[in-house]
Amino acid sequence: MKKHNFSAGPCILPQSVMQKASEAVINFNNLDLSLIEISHRSKDFVDVMENARSLALEHLGLQNKGYQALFLQGGASTQFLMAAYNLLENKAAYLNTGTWSSKAIKEAKLFGEIIEVASSKNANFNYIPKEYVIPSDADYFHCTSNNTIFGTQMKEFPEVNMPLVCDMSSDIFSRVLDFSKFDLIYAGAQKNMGPAGTTLVVVKEDILGKISRTIPSMLDYTVHIGKDSMFNTPPVFAVYVSMLTLEWLKEKGGVAAAEKLNNEKASLLYTEIDRNSLFEGFVANKEDRSNMNATFNLTSESHKDAFDSLWKNAGINGLEGHRSVGGYRASMYNALPIESVQVLVDVMKELERKG
Amino acid sequence: MKKHNFSAGPCILPQSVMQKASEAVINFNNLDLSLIEISHRSKDFVDVMENARSLALEHLGLQNKGYQALFLQGGASTQFLMAAYNLLENKAAYLNTGTWSSKAIKEAKLFGEIIEVASSKNANFNYIPKEYVIPSDADYFHCTSNNTIFGTQMKEFPEVNMPLVCDMSSDIFSRVLDFSKFDLIYAGAQKNMGPAGTTLVVVKEDILGKISRTIPSMLDYTVHIGKDSMFNTPPVFAVYVSMLTLEWLKEKGGVAAAEKLNNEKASLLYTEIDRNSLFEGFVANKEDRSNMNATFNLTSESHKDAFDSLWKNAGINGLEGHRSVGGYRASMYNALPIESVQVLVDVMKELERKG
Repeated sequence: MKKHNFSAGPCILPQSVMQKASEAVINFNNLDLSLIEISHRSKDFVDVMENARSLALEHLGLQNKGYQALFLQGGASTQFLMAAYNLLENKAAYLNTGTWSSKAIKEAKLFGEIIEVASSKNANFNYIPKEYVIPSDADYFHCTSNNTIFGTQMKEFPEVNMPLVCDMSSDIFSRVLDFSKFDLIYAGAQKNMGPAGTTLVVVKEDILGKISRTIPSMLDYTVHIGKDSMFNTPPVFAVYVSMLTLEWLKEKGGVAAAEKLNNEKASLLYTEIDRNSLFEGFVANKEDRSNMNATFNLTSESHKDAFDSLWKNAGINGLEGHRSVGGYRASMYNALPIESVQVLVDVMKELERKG
Repeated sequence: MKKHNFSAGPCILPQSVMQKASEAVINFNNLDLSLIEISHRSKDFVDVMENARSLALEHLGLQNKGYQALFLQGGASTQFLMAAYNLLENKAAYLNTGTWSSKAIKEAKLFGEIIEVASSKNANFNYIPKEYVIPSDADYFHCTSNNTIFGTQMKEFPEVNMPLVCDMSSDIFSRVLDFSKFDLIYAGAQKNMGPAGTTLVVVKEDILGKISRTIPSMLDYTVHIGKDSMFNTPPVFAVYVSMLTLEWLKEKGGVAAAEKLNNEKASLLYTEIDRNSLFEGFVANKEDRSNMNATFNLTSESHKDAFDSLWKNAGINGLEGHRSVGGYRASMYNALPIESVQVLVDVMKELERKG
């Protein structure tokens, strides 16, 4: 049975990418060797790494603009501390829009003073704060572009006179932004880019090397840049699958084409959430709704068993909401076809008819 | 053409493991979903993680002895700093047997005083130092059990009255040791265990929590233990393939059976290196020779082209020596069949006949 995979992450990747990845585990580049048993210093793998780094910058429009792309390990959770290790001399400003922002703040506090410029915690993070003042003497400003758990997304970013750092784990490559406004972007691969196990870091080189702290090699962006993202053995499989996904994105028309389809998918689902009286959206302001993760609840828990049975029978996977929010979450990353969203909408209509 | 893969790492894994891994990328556990597109919190993946952790302890004979097994990210290079971050209050003692020991020492120096108890650097690390004194007030003693680049291996470990920390990246699961003598063992997966992208950490819990330093969450062993190695999204594919390899090892008779075969493979090759006048081993003392990585040179460079042509035509891959040593390196990890070693020995004999 065909599955409609709404998993929040790790999540759906293009079928053609899965197929190529599966084949490479047996025989990579017709070498009669597996992708995972060759030297990472071989030309075949070095080409993969260079292609992945180049495609990442190309998709963001950041080629030849002083940026470097790295494929590291440790997830966004490691970036919470690496960003601070590399950039925080005295104090930094953070916007708190959810679980991941809060974790980033917690880790950064080990390295200096953290000013939380605004937080929506008092409303269980169901909106994006917009009125706040960023201290002009902060070393950088940090924000989270999309909040997977709560289903909110920043649509505007503040103008700042300091490095702009952004955790884009759950919406990178999903929409067109002026990425040159950002100085450090990081993203765990396991949403729009690849399998869990690698983290994309895109950093403007001129923000580095300005702090007095000595940084351990593995946590130093400059060290990884100096070794072309191969300071140590990289996570070969995860980088290869990320490269395949970035190639697939290019064939599909790039980030602009992905954004168009993502808007259509989100519009289809949110229209039904708003129209169907059995459902209500979790996010307080429609303008803050995420195009990646739609969070919604039943207006009456009495329909829970019927709804759960309907969507599971329709082949839908991963629709359960996060425990912090409850209800449902439909994650609609780049590789999710609009047909899957239509299946979900049809199920919601069917519940209404039967209810 | 069948390849004989002597790559130093990433390296050969069992064919049956490759096959299962390839299939799981398309359809995992008959879920009609890929291994890499399901939630890491799903029962299917949690079972993988728990199975992998349990098998690792079982193979080392460390179940129910106060140890925890973790599958982390960042390679042994991250463990160089994590070991020090978690254990180094004042000073630690390190044995320097090669490139990786030297790197471990460099990173640890950021966290306290490092006593290098002995080093074979003056002889390009072609032997294992044996006479040294470990200061009794050190916080721990650190050593590297096998030196992939130079082809040396520690056959004995010192008796110490402090935590014994060992980087076993390149020989874990290859031989029987009393692993309960060790308090912290770490190993990048990409030799005897799995693909690049995860690192096994086996730690005795009672050595943790004894330092005054505040540790960032991702670098804190206690945090990872508290979350059953799922503090953040783990490197799903690398952990799964490691689990498959640990299952394969169990089917083959475990570490004792692997050791027996590894001894036979090493004996076959070293006997030829010593017998054949066209070759000479790199390691000064035979007792220090690694059963994992045999390093050797031609006695005359005039045979280089002929030898290179012979082994390449025989389907041998990855025999080039590391640039620090030159010559050749035959890595004979658990999954390498003895037939591949025989092919190499036959090629060496053929060179002798033709030479």
